[in-house]
Amino acid sequence: MTLSAADADWIAADWGTSNLRVWAMRGDEALVERRSNNGMGAMPRPEDFADELARLTEGWPPVPVIACGMVGARQGWVEVPYRAVPCPAAPELTAVPGDPGGRPVLIAGGVMQTDPPDVMRGEETQIAGVLAAKPDFDGVICLPGTHTKWARISAGEICHFQTVMTGEIFGLLSRQSVLRHSLISGDHDPAVFAEETDRALSQPHQAWARLFRLRAASLVGDAAPGEAVSRLSGSLIGLDLGAARAYWLGEQVLILGNSRLAALYDAALRMQGVASVVGDADTATRAGLLAAWRKYEGRS
Amino acid sequence: MTLSAADADWIAADWGTSNLRVWAMRGDEALVERRSNNGMGAMPRPEDFADELARLTEGWPPVPVIACGMVGARQGWVEVPYRAVPCPAAPELTAVPGDPGGRPVLIAGGVMQTDPPDVMRGEETQIAGVLAAKPDFDGVICLPGTHTKWARISAGEICHFQTVMTGEIFGLLSRQSVLRHSLISGDHDPAVFAEETDRALSQPHQAWARLFRLRAASLVGDAAPGEAVSRLSGSLIGLDLGAARAYWLGEQVLILGNSRLAALYDAALRMQGVASVVGDADTATRAGLLAAWRKYEGRS
Repeated sequence: MTLSAADADWIAADWGTSNLRVWAMRGDEALVERRSNNGMGAMPRPEDFADELARLTEGWPPVPVIACGMVGARQGWVEVPYRAVPCPAAPELTAVPGDPGGRPVLIAGGVMQTDPPDVMRGEETQIAGVLAAKPDFDGVICLPGTHTKWARISAGEICHFQTVMTGEIFGLLSRQSVLRHSLISGDHDPAVFAEETDRALSQPHQAWARLFRLRAASLVGDAAPGEAVSRLSGSLIGLDLGAARAYWLGEQVLILGNSRLAALYDAALRMQGVASVVGDADTATRAGLLAAWRKYEGRS
Repeated sequence: MTLSAADADWIAADWGTSNLRVWAMRGDEALVERRSNNGMGAMPRPEDFADELARLTEGWPPVPVIACGMVGARQGWVEVPYRAVPCPAAPELTAVPGDPGGRPVLIAGGVMQTDPPDVMRGEETQIAGVLAAKPDFDGVICLPGTHTKWARISAGEICHFQTVMTGEIFGLLSRQSVLRHSLISGDHDPAVFAEETDRALSQPHQAWARLFRLRAASLVGDAAPGEAVSRLSGSLIGLDLGAARAYWLGEQVLILGNSRLAALYDAALRMQGVASVVGDADTATRAGLLAAWRKYEGRS
């Protein structure tokens, strides 16, 4: 028998700055997935969130929605307070008043750190998903993305973490800076990527100066197509790894992320002798939301 | 007797990516200045350059125009070839065919370097202006800007140079990244600037990780207004100085730039014990164009 969205007993929602994804869930099974580009950044007014959620879940039963991500930020739907590290990864839920659209909507709170200052919203739920499957996980989780997070996990808690703006800076440099003229897309060049990662780790100041060379090389040299993109991602991921050395050195690292970016971090870490493992970020997100839903059902 | 633009015997033009400035000149004296935001980047077709120049110099006599900057780039009016270092700073001029607008228009060529790859267009004319006043200048010229240039000058020649994208990255981070929410303008804080510059010089990888803290500190901490801007410029200029250490260490450095940015580089260099001197960039540009005009007049 095939189940449809009508059989859902809850809805999982991953609502970040740029995107919203919802899954009609039956227990741990995702029955249907829907996506929208109306992330938190596209919602000028708090009431827009209810409309967008109703639109994207149209026809689905009136079951609880468990959401994580920037939807709980100050500029989001309902501001959900941060918890401070060290704290359990499993998020605490805050209900949106009034059951919008006839459904209870529960938003997961983020995690903050005061020394040094740092924040996350959404990644704590992915980490909770990892811990739901492996309660005794002890090590480091790397979550590459617009803002890459490195988190040290021990005894079921997020002990401390670090954010590096690698993905956002890659996007700005490759789409909006003068480098965009020289970043012709082409096949990824693993040798060039490895070379730049190593250089950025061993000579971080020179990595900074080497950025403009990507442009200059295409004007006065004979850079191969695709080479500049591989160099830029190698440089930026190398700088990220240099900043996060205390997280991965001598550690087992679990990388959670989309396949392409996760594979680059995996390659870079392996070059440094780290036995990294790549896990699926969406699976982790849904597992973290599932754990939160089960806890909510148990107490409601 | 007061001179007006009608008394000009040549026109100086500084035509970069974002702006065009022209001066009606009588010898070394600037009689009138006009500005436009129609830089090279705003000119979709080569013929637009002639229209824009005619518009901005309307009413001025039909005297030669000597121009430098991105107007001579591949995406500019007429592509003027680069000369390779080491070479005299004094630019070679290429005439735009057909005396557009009834005036000879001469464009200064840029300078390139193959190892490592680098290019400049416009800065060579400013350097030539410095050398016109001080032919025996031997040292380093730092030209802060969208793309900061560091150039080693000896025996009247540009020996080698390095570009760092400091200004462009500052602009992208402060106006388009998530940091924009936390960069409340305020008074420059010299102590915070100095602290970040030092950190970026001694711990470049950590500077990379500290970028997101500017955002996080405003969410979970009590950052003072203006502090984040001073931290960001301190970080980026510190990274720039780290990349250019071979240029300034133990050298006399002449900084050419607009007053605010030049003052920041000056402060950062002085903290490292460098006896830097700040010179006016516009004066240097006109002096370099003047030397080129005199050479052109002498041979025409």
